[in-house]
Amino acid sequence: MQSTKPPSGTRDFLPEDIRRREYVIGTVRRVYERYGFEPLETPAFENIETLLGKYGEEGNKLIFKILKRGEHEASGEADLALRYDLTVPLARVVAQYQNELPKFFKRYQIQPVWRADRPAKGRFREFFQCDIDSIGSTSAVVEVEQLAAVSEVLTTLGFVDFKIRINHRQELPALLAQHFAIHEPPKQAEALITLDKLDKIGPEGVADELEKRQLTTRAQALQGLKDAATRAVPESLAAMIQLCLGTPAANHLLFDPFLARGLSYYTGAIMEISVPDLAGSLGGGGRYDNLVGMFLGRDVPACGFSLGLERIIVVMTERGMFPASVAGGNADVMVTIWNDGSRSDALMLAGELRSGGLRVDVYPEPDKLGKQFKYASSRSVPFVAIVGDDERANGMVSVKDMKNGEQQTIARAEAANYIASRVRAS
Amino acid sequence: MQSTKPPSGTRDFLPEDIRRREYVIGTVRRVYERYGFEPLETPAFENIETLLGKYGEEGNKLIFKILKRGEHEASGEADLALRYDLTVPLARVVAQYQNELPKFFKRYQIQPVWRADRPAKGRFREFFQCDIDSIGSTSAVVEVEQLAAVSEVLTTLGFVDFKIRINHRQELPALLAQHFAIHEPPKQAEALITLDKLDKIGPEGVADELEKRQLTTRAQALQGLKDAATRAVPESLAAMIQLCLGTPAANHLLFDPFLARGLSYYTGAIMEISVPDLAGSLGGGGRYDNLVGMFLGRDVPACGFSLGLERIIVVMTERGMFPASVAGGNADVMVTIWNDGSRSDALMLAGELRSGGLRVDVYPEPDKLGKQFKYASSRSVPFVAIVGDDERANGMVSVKDMKNGEQQTIARAEAANYIASRVRAS
Repeated sequence: MQSTKPPSGTRDFLPEDIRRREYVIGTVRRVYERYGFEPLETPAFENIETLLGKYGEEGNKLIFKILKRGEHEASGEADLALRYDLTVPLARVVAQYQNELPKFFKRYQIQPVWRADRPAKGRFREFFQCDIDSIGSTSAVVEVEQLAAVSEVLTTLGFVDFKIRINHRQELPALLAQHFAIHEPPKQAEALITLDKLDKIGPEGVADELEKRQLTTRAQALQGLKDAATRAVPESLAAMIQLCLGTPAANHLLFDPFLARGLSYYTGAIMEISVPDLAGSLGGGGRYDNLVGMFLGRDVPACGFSLGLERIIVVMTERGMFPASVAGGNADVMVTIWNDGSRSDALMLAGELRSGGLRVDVYPEPDKLGKQFKYASSRSVPFVAIVGDDERANGMVSVKDMKNGEQQTIARAEAANYIASRVRAS
Repeated sequence: MQSTKPPSGTRDFLPEDIRRREYVIGTVRRVYERYGFEPLETPAFENIETLLGKYGEEGNKLIFKILKRGEHEASGEADLALRYDLTVPLARVVAQYQNELPKFFKRYQIQPVWRADRPAKGRFREFFQCDIDSIGSTSAVVEVEQLAAVSEVLTTLGFVDFKIRINHRQELPALLAQHFAIHEPPKQAEALITLDKLDKIGPEGVADELEKRQLTTRAQALQGLKDAATRAVPESLAAMIQLCLGTPAANHLLFDPFLARGLSYYTGAIMEISVPDLAGSLGGGGRYDNLVGMFLGRDVPACGFSLGLERIIVVMTERGMFPASVAGGNADVMVTIWNDGSRSDALMLAGELRSGGLRVDVYPEPDKLGKQFKYASSRSVPFVAIVGDDERANGMVSVKDMKNGEQQTIARAEAANYIASRVRAS
């Protein structure tokens, strides 16, 4: 017998999982649309050259590669690769359709990405990103609109305690030089990898690691961390923070001089959202004014923000933030089958009820009525419709309320309205 | 410079493409939910053994294979493969979650599948299927509910002229024996491949091919085709057709004794939907009572129907069936930036208008107003909001109707309602 599990690091989403996902995705989409972002989707795979060399050495290793088809299959050569993020495909799209897209292209994209990471709690090989990106302007209005949009997404979902840490990529060399006496760019890059872990390993851990990497002494590192923490908000961010004041992002912003963000393509403001009860971030982003140039030959300013669907769902589930209506079950009413000869009439009744906007299941077999009731109950279907010989002769339908077991017989023409009003009331 | 095209056989979906897709997907989903089907999603890739051997020899060749990661990469070995259809993953899911799923599991699944087919007009390597499947019952009610559901999907989208051809897989051996004198199962299987092309190549073409394959003579084939066309509806389908009479499928059904359907896993009723102006089908399905058994070790009855999203969109686009509202543009109103100092106020105004449910874009830079108007016009944004020095001093907003150029100055507190009512009226 074959294994029936999904591949390592991936998941099957059963109906109640999908309903939670759709609730979040629907909210994300509505808010992004209200901010003037337009939908975009790109293929699940890209030509392999499109992805290689964009995510650093570590990223390269995590790209899933697809075997060349046909006669080349035996060679083991790969010519395609699964989408690793939504930013590089966007940069390709901006270059490809430059004459069709508006000058200030604002797009959202909600699609899965794949990374051959070692699966762990909360780390999957297939996961969804919800990205917004704004192409074509260097104005801080772009960053502010994105911060406002993601804040409104989270607020709409019920988050109140999220923090958005912001920094500016070009402040980091000065910080490392002034407070840690690390001056050479390669050493600075190495130091940033360590600094980026401050949240996880704390000042002591960072100091230990910086010393171990021979970038500075432990004592100097600890002093540097202490001094740098009181740095004033840099000029490059002050205007942006000011502009956020009248937006949904206002009370969530926090200048963090140590925020570094892993991806190497950032060039300006960088930002990251977190909540107290989740290690790692709910999302992040920043300005990347050079990436499109790798496809287009001339630089185009760009800024983006990505929310992680799975992490949002994890926190919402743990905190019980999903409204009860999300677990809305599969049907409002189940039509029973009285006997073999009444199947056609049962299907017609189902059609009448559906025309009234109801979600209707039909029990497929002429089992004993008790068995059919039991099935409806096990499925949490709130109402069951029965047309027995009497009801049929009189143009009536019996409607059983599965919560209290009460049964009402009503005119068939009224059945859809009657059940719909009962469903709305419950 | 790198290529910026999407990989061969795949497409990027720009905003207006996505809007058309979402319109169709939304309709499909709503109708399927009204029929009591529940959403399911499975990973983009499966363990390679899950897919191999399920789609026949031809299918095996078209499966995209993913290279094993890490140290095994150099071996060229593949351990994962991209989803080829939605039916085999469902069969795996039914086996894996047998204790969690209801006895009569009815699911819908709308996801892309990938096939390494030679790309051609209307044939892609990445395309979406919209499937419904019902697990657990052999009752004809299952087929009828599915035929009703897909008919209601198409009717809701505006199709009136579709035909659903139906046949029964177990009628085909008798047909081949009686009318073509083809008796041995392997020869019958070969003949079915030819018969399946009747739509495309006509009776003459089929007769030629059957003779060429040495399965029968040209003359006997033509006579057989003529005789078999008048076959009576078989017992195995009569009840099903009868049950469809009161459903949305009623006027679309057509018994087709030559319908064969390619996939080998069908065991009972088979069906296929077509419209006059599209070669090939809009969708199809059938009963497959043995497939789940390949994963579970015991057979479970099942029946499914798949609609092809791309083909539906092709026909709807060619016929102009999309309502005008689908091309609804990116924003209801664009907020202009008067000057650098008014950026913050412009962002606040955008927030106020969004709170009124409007989709609002903000022009990012303090360009000349004429340039900003021109941009809004090029983007088909119907209204533009301006807060100049006068408006600001008096708590007013000027709203310009981009269609007729008229401008109205109104109280800022009324702006959202005013624009919303104008948008609704247009």
